[in-house]
Amino acid sequence: MSRDAPWQATILTLFPDAFPGILGQSLAGRALAADLWQLQTVHLRDFAYGKHRLVDDTPFGGGPGMVIRPDVVAAALASVGEAPGPRLYLSPRGRPLDQQLVHELADGPGAVFVGGRYEGLDQRAIEACDLREVSVGDYILSGGELAAQLVMDACIRLLPGVMGKPASHQQESFEIGLLEYPLYTQPRSWNGLDVPDILTSGHHRQIAEWRQAEAEAITRQRRPDLWQAWLAKKAKGKNAKKPE
Amino acid sequence: MSRDAPWQATILTLFPDAFPGILGQSLAGRALAADLWQLQTVHLRDFAYGKHRLVDDTPFGGGPGMVIRPDVVAAALASVGEAPGPRLYLSPRGRPLDQQLVHELADGPGAVFVGGRYEGLDQRAIEACDLREVSVGDYILSGGELAAQLVMDACIRLLPGVMGKPASHQQESFEIGLLEYPLYTQPRSWNGLDVPDILTSGHHRQIAEWRQAEAEAITRQRRPDLWQAWLAKKAKGKNAKKPE
Repeated sequence: MSRDAPWQATILTLFPDAFPGILGQSLAGRALAADLWQLQTVHLRDFAYGKHRLVDDTPFGGGPGMVIRPDVVAAALASVGEAPGPRLYLSPRGRPLDQQLVHELADGPGAVFVGGRYEGLDQRAIEACDLREVSVGDYILSGGELAAQLVMDACIRLLPGVMGKPASHQQESFEIGLLEYPLYTQPRSWNGLDVPDILTSGHHRQIAEWRQAEAEAITRQRRPDLWQAWLAKKAKGKNAKKPE
Repeated sequence: MSRDAPWQATILTLFPDAFPGILGQSLAGRALAADLWQLQTVHLRDFAYGKHRLVDDTPFGGGPGMVIRPDVVAAALASVGEAPGPRLYLSPRGRPLDQQLVHELADGPGAVFVGGRYEGLDQRAIEACDLREVSVGDYILSGGELAAQLVMDACIRLLPGVMGKPASHQQESFEIGLLEYPLYTQPRSWNGLDVPDILTSGHHRQIAEWRQAEAEAITRQRRPDLWQAWLAKKAKGKNAKKPE
């Protein structure tokens, strides 16, 4: 697999210094240096309104916090009109991010992220600029910047050439619909605790079966929601094969 | 509300330079400077094993990636024995983070985070060190560092003195079990789109009712799971009041 152009991340933010942040290090950092992805940072303040350089104001109808003006967001987005990919607004009201959405984004040309510090964005900007709301989880952050970095990180590791072995992706949590089996490494005996015998047996098929059973058991126990979805998917697969 | 001591975040990581990262800026950064929370960064490499300074090794039983050694994790955790709070391992297999867990952590003295780069941690370390596995969402990251920053950010904004008005918390997504109503700010008319009349009416009660109706509508439409949970909670509340 190869790509015509590097994956392009664009971030509109009031905290441009926070980027690339941790994405400038390690796996994502090496990929950035190798031009497997690119980052464009746009300072929302550059599109501030009027002589007072306002980017936000109090919410109509009252309430705490400040709301980012729609004209500022629209002008900043217009300035990156050529940037590829969907326009995403990280918000607790958005579609919950899952590995399927990560794949969709990583398979595309890139994504434009609007980081919403303060209380949030004016609703008209969300609608008029056709922003796709995405949520990284059911909790509240002080802004969208960390959430945007998180989405970028999840995408970047899937880009061709970023991780050593494509096989790494296939055995992980969520890729097969199950949580991951337990992992063991050196030392073989530690603190009175031994690595399970099966893993040092050399019987590849039995190891694979043990891992599958462990993954199923941990998913059933910890995440009934994922377990039910996996059972449904499995049943569907069996039905689809019936005509054979 | 006040605290006896600053909230104490401790992170064990192979990428200490990534901290405080974005948490050194804005809301969390000002709170850090004001000593409302403190950060201790521990380099896992300092607890590497043997003359080759190993922190990780290949997984027993085969498979891609590298697994962090249990003795390295245990030694690093022992070195921060006095650090307050639960020992958390950010992992897709963990309990999904939600706002309730964020409150539990923020109300406590702090938390110790183990960032698991590479394929993951040896299972024996998770069990022997009694690590509490927490997942920030159903997607895969290149490591636990960003996830740890996310948990810290969610906690820090709840600490007394960090945000201007306590009221900010009460009207937000998840705090009342509903997604947030839409927000509007200046300009009142933008791009042919006006702020809803009700919000400029000055009728506080009607505004509150409109917002509640909007929050209910958006939750029902976007997140049937949260909506059902909210209905159940509401029904339970009514039943509890029956004796009156």
